[in-house]
Amino acid sequence: MKIMQLYASMKSDLQSIEDMMAKTVRSDLPLLSETSLHLLKAGGKRLRPVFVLLSGKFGDYSLETLKHVAVPLELIHMATLVHDDVIDDADTRRGQLTVKSKWDNKIAMYTGDFIYAKALTVVTKLPNVRIHQTLSNAIVQMCLGEMEQIRDFFNVEQSVRNYLLRIRRKTALLIAISCQLGAIATNAPARISDALYRFGYNVGMAFQIGDDLLDLCGTEKTIGKPPGSDLRQGNITLPVLYALEDADIRDRLLREISLIRESEGSVSSVAAVKLVRASSGIAKAEQMSDRYIAKALKALDTLPDNNARRNLHDIARFVAKRSY
Amino acid sequence: MKIMQLYASMKSDLQSIEDMMAKTVRSDLPLLSETSLHLLKAGGKRLRPVFVLLSGKFGDYSLETLKHVAVPLELIHMATLVHDDVIDDADTRRGQLTVKSKWDNKIAMYTGDFIYAKALTVVTKLPNVRIHQTLSNAIVQMCLGEMEQIRDFFNVEQSVRNYLLRIRRKTALLIAISCQLGAIATNAPARISDALYRFGYNVGMAFQIGDDLLDLCGTEKTIGKPPGSDLRQGNITLPVLYALEDADIRDRLLREISLIRESEGSVSSVAAVKLVRASSGIAKAEQMSDRYIAKALKALDTLPDNNARRNLHDIARFVAKRSY
Repeated sequence: MKIMQLYASMKSDLQSIEDMMAKTVRSDLPLLSETSLHLLKAGGKRLRPVFVLLSGKFGDYSLETLKHVAVPLELIHMATLVHDDVIDDADTRRGQLTVKSKWDNKIAMYTGDFIYAKALTVVTKLPNVRIHQTLSNAIVQMCLGEMEQIRDFFNVEQSVRNYLLRIRRKTALLIAISCQLGAIATNAPARISDALYRFGYNVGMAFQIGDDLLDLCGTEKTIGKPPGSDLRQGNITLPVLYALEDADIRDRLLREISLIRESEGSVSSVAAVKLVRASSGIAKAEQMSDRYIAKALKALDTLPDNNARRNLHDIARFVAKRSY
Repeated sequence: MKIMQLYASMKSDLQSIEDMMAKTVRSDLPLLSETSLHLLKAGGKRLRPVFVLLSGKFGDYSLETLKHVAVPLELIHMATLVHDDVIDDADTRRGQLTVKSKWDNKIAMYTGDFIYAKALTVVTKLPNVRIHQTLSNAIVQMCLGEMEQIRDFFNVEQSVRNYLLRIRRKTALLIAISCQLGAIATNAPARISDALYRFGYNVGMAFQIGDDLLDLCGTEKTIGKPPGSDLRQGNITLPVLYALEDADIRDRLLREISLIRESEGSVSSVAAVKLVRASSGIAKAEQMSDRYIAKALKALDTLPDNNARRNLHDIARFVAKRSY
């Protein structure tokens, strides 16, 4: 089962969003068009547009309006990925060369700035100021989350709460507002947009925990980049934090992490990854992810029972599934 | 005469903008607060807020409303400077260490992203969607201008038109909309906001040409960074383009520029700067700047004769003045 199969009912609307994204990033600068289209073509799950469309089904569905929410959300997500790859010195993403690796850091920085700015020109076409506000607040939170990630690099003493706050800002909020704004843009009542926000937030948390698990448990083929990349750059994720609570593992894991740190990431993270995999950290992080999925499904229960709700349910179950 | 003396009538309103800027960039991340406040404290001419306030005098002046235009405009300007300094590998600006030099490129990238995002949260508090649209369009143009600058590095065959289009995007548009939005936010009639846009646009062009002249004709003390910085990074500005039209200079100047290029900026630009200064390029660029100032003043003539108009007139004359 691939996630795209869950999108079958939205195929033509998603294509329309895809076309608008490509049109939006077009400019009279060939270099910018090239970097932007490279990013678009690298694909992705398009989770944010999908959530916008499905949430729009709870209001007065209008593709024209929803496009002006979905396109900016996905473009902003893409812009942050380009900047992330600069921070993370990442050479590949989704099995493709990153912009910073195919071109360079500076071009990646401006490509991100450009896509980000273009995203705003699309959303500001909507007359609803609240949508502009919600989006700009979410971008601020994402920036804070990214800076927290830099701050917390190699911080093995950070708390689980700290990690959760960081991924909330970095990932979950944008997914939460994708659901919320799909409902708001189509004039759904507040109790519906609120429930959708809670759904998106909890799926987003589970999604990021799943992503962090995949980086430890997946293969280069399933991840699209070498496993253990997070650890090599100093990003201490939930399974690692839980593994550090494991007395049998802690000292050895600390030693491996400090070796990686001292070598500035040139030492392999294979041994550290092995230790985490052998610990209870994986199972504990999986349980945490499951708890978020359960909360997401509970939020769905309050919504009218329709095809969109069933679709959201299936996508949440998909996110919960382990692919390693 | 310092530019601050021209601001005397706005002193308390400008202070209120300054306070709001500091408040806006505050966050629960000490690192981000530190980098952002470092930028704020480095100062600057605050040309954009000043133009917003003075333009607001042609409508129903409201500091509360105008703050929500002025603060985002100045913050966006600051955010682009932080990212520029990454591109330009600039160690100092206004005599202060740049963020990328005091911290590093990555922190500078996220500081810019954060300030930029925070700017948007302020402007979206205004109910007028047109203001949001104008601002986001201007940001796109600025990104394009910056990318054009990268594209045109060391391109000695570029046309004057090419240079003008680039600085239009990079600099003049944000200054133009500072004037325009000050009028729009205070409900001035369209013919007033249009005239103010033309004023700002032409002052902005003259301002950037003046800045490019200063980089060639100023001293480290007056510029706040070593002279010839533009040339060393490959930024071919108007005086250089005109100098290249000078048959007596062209070949020697081309040779110097290619030496700088081949050494990737490690060769001094002193000889190239000397050649440009000895050419007719300086006078020609000054004439071009004067033509823009004349157009700016002409746009002012169509406005009601009041203190704000006189103040704008004085600031334009100040921008026209050579300080080298």
